[in-house]
Amino acid sequence: MLGRVLNTHQQWLCRQLSDAGYEVVRQVAVPDAAEAIGEAVEEALQRADLVLTTGGLGPTSDDLTRAEISRRLGLETHVDRGVLEVIEEFFRRRGREVLESVKVQALVPEGAVVLPNAHGTAPGLRIEVPSRARGGGRAAHVVLLPGPPRELRPMFAEQVLPWLLRAFPPSAERAARVLRAAGWGESAIEETIGPALAGLVAEGLVLGYCARPGDVEVRLESRGEGAAGRVAAAESVVRHRLGGAIYGAGEETMEGVTVGMLRERGRTLAVAESCTGGLVAHRVTNVPGASEVFLAGWVTYSNAAKTRWLGVPAQLLAEEGAVSAAVARAMAEGVRKESGADYGLALTGIAGPGGGSPAKPVGTVFMALAEACGTRVEHHLNAMDRETFKWIASQQALDMARRELIESDG
Amino acid sequence: MLGRVLNTHQQWLCRQLSDAGYEVVRQVAVPDAAEAIGEAVEEALQRADLVLTTGGLGPTSDDLTRAEISRRLGLETHVDRGVLEVIEEFFRRRGREVLESVKVQALVPEGAVVLPNAHGTAPGLRIEVPSRARGGGRAAHVVLLPGPPRELRPMFAEQVLPWLLRAFPPSAERAARVLRAAGWGESAIEETIGPALAGLVAEGLVLGYCARPGDVEVRLESRGEGAAGRVAAAESVVRHRLGGAIYGAGEETMEGVTVGMLRERGRTLAVAESCTGGLVAHRVTNVPGASEVFLAGWVTYSNAAKTRWLGVPAQLLAEEGAVSAAVARAMAEGVRKESGADYGLALTGIAGPGGGSPAKPVGTVFMALAEACGTRVEHHLNAMDRETFKWIASQQALDMARRELIESDG
Repeated sequence: MLGRVLNTHQQWLCRQLSDAGYEVVRQVAVPDAAEAIGEAVEEALQRADLVLTTGGLGPTSDDLTRAEISRRLGLETHVDRGVLEVIEEFFRRRGREVLESVKVQALVPEGAVVLPNAHGTAPGLRIEVPSRARGGGRAAHVVLLPGPPRELRPMFAEQVLPWLLRAFPPSAERAARVLRAAGWGESAIEETIGPALAGLVAEGLVLGYCARPGDVEVRLESRGEGAAGRVAAAESVVRHRLGGAIYGAGEETMEGVTVGMLRERGRTLAVAESCTGGLVAHRVTNVPGASEVFLAGWVTYSNAAKTRWLGVPAQLLAEEGAVSAAVARAMAEGVRKESGADYGLALTGIAGPGGGSPAKPVGTVFMALAEACGTRVEHHLNAMDRETFKWIASQQALDMARRELIESDG
Repeated sequence: MLGRVLNTHQQWLCRQLSDAGYEVVRQVAVPDAAEAIGEAVEEALQRADLVLTTGGLGPTSDDLTRAEISRRLGLETHVDRGVLEVIEEFFRRRGREVLESVKVQALVPEGAVVLPNAHGTAPGLRIEVPSRARGGGRAAHVVLLPGPPRELRPMFAEQVLPWLLRAFPPSAERAARVLRAAGWGESAIEETIGPALAGLVAEGLVLGYCARPGDVEVRLESRGEGAAGRVAAAESVVRHRLGGAIYGAGEETMEGVTVGMLRERGRTLAVAESCTGGLVAHRVTNVPGASEVFLAGWVTYSNAAKTRWLGVPAQLLAEEGAVSAAVARAMAEGVRKESGADYGLALTGIAGPGGGSPAKPVGTVFMALAEACGTRVEHHLNAMDRETFKWIASQQALDMARRELIESDG
């Protein structure tokens, strides 16, 4: 399925390994073909003492990884009774018939350690590859993991990583930190922080940047003696130079940070969306516990909906147009009043591909944040495809709320 | 940034190549380190006549690909005046200062073909690698492409693929088709269609499955003489066996199919969401032209919001609980009446991680579809993490509307 499936598991695995102090030097994807799989694993065993594979352990005819790796390593496989019983129980509990095809998942190569799968049927396998099978050098390990993220992730976290930390302890001191900035371009960030970090870079700090729509990741990393100190010093510099543009660190998200700030302050939010079509509400409600602070959301795509449920005057819509600062303001104030929330956040814009004009091109968006002491309005031009536009606009709106919450503390 | 960034560009590239008739045999990711990049490209040139790279062409200090590949191939680089002017113009048009660091993007290796970048500053580069530089064999090509999807995608589609089809025409007849099914498990699908397709498989049909939350992709592929006929015959078999479970083909999405059916029939939709928090509205409004059929969405997280805006009786909420078939029904009927839409779609459930009980565990969801001649209610148990739960529930709800639209034709 090379190219058909997004390799989110590989990205997740690399990040886990990197956070645990390992350096991932290569990630390879191959088609669901026995020869390609076997060749890639053999090549990897020439280069590395530990090879992790994901996917290809399932019940269908294109699941070839278990059989191919066993064959290349010269290992017989047998049906493991214990594994088979677990699979049968998995189906019984769900009131489903045990299909013949799923039984292949109970095949275990000789000498392999079985990694039970709490969230699916195919167990993982850990195989020790003796020196002779590699053509010399020390013994290596191949770990076969299932592809579906909800099976892979707990299995890796609970059964592979603890073993790995014991069997291959990370050797050198190492520290890493990711800071996330909104509202700035990648080049502007580097010109602002680069010179100030030059000294730390000379001492071994590694700086990385990743620009994404609405977001730049600044990665600080160092190895060897003093690594943690260098990374901490670099973080201070970056935070000082970029100030409130840094909205989070590590795995934090804009919605998580904003909901967290609302919860800490005991304040509530309601949202009225036109062009983002529910994405702001969706992101807010992705955060566990959002129900404490998120009162309600409206997706008012039509003018009639804006007037009827948010009280936006029809005359205002006629005079200013639905995509205007005045309508964004009226929507924010309307949603705040209707819901009784502390903050009313509203967006109106042109996601495209149609609907643009010379005065208001595709990508135009007005957003407003209403609170007790007044309403602020911002205007942005995000000339992107429809989905990227929606994402960036939602990021800008959440960031507007976040910045307001910071200022209200001061 | 290996492991820090999701390789959506690689997946996209593989798919484009595959759809154009090429077989992608390997995809490799390496860290942003000069040696790792250079080594991977040199290895790839041993194996392949065409190597595509993405990323590492930007202005920051970790953008090393252009310089490293030039060095390894023994090519001098020079600043290209034309490219530099385009970069300067890019910044001027946006009212931004031309930072010194961006000028590195105007460096071009000797003999390289420049691929202009309509959506960013770094151009792509196409380099011919003479036979001697590969240590024999025929001449090869390395194509360096930018990483950001909105720069990469048009550059590949408009400048690389047309050249590729001329320079390396796909050799054999080939056909492929992806069908998408909802509501069935991967094993059940294979048991249903596998035996019926055995004859075609013996003649050279390749069957692939990919299970994702709420979705199974069935991939039909064949090469050589009669490929198109085999794939078409297989598609008939699959559609016959799985019937309405097949909601789309190729790049079609559930939301795109559902909005398309509503548009064709001139019917309208409104949505009331509790547990999915706006995701159904977001998916519907991702479809260009959704405004013709989507009237409004409510995200009624609290009981008060359900009562006030959707008219769900407070007594019903107290007696049945917010997560119940009766409340889903009342929400769907309420949103239909309030909005004046032909269809009112509503969801209420427990996304978790908190809020479950023995009678209504985390993952419980009730969904209802109201229309003129009545209201249907469905119950599902999606015991997943919060975001997967939201995704599957939104898929089930959109599929409920899709199936209703099909039945209403009959």
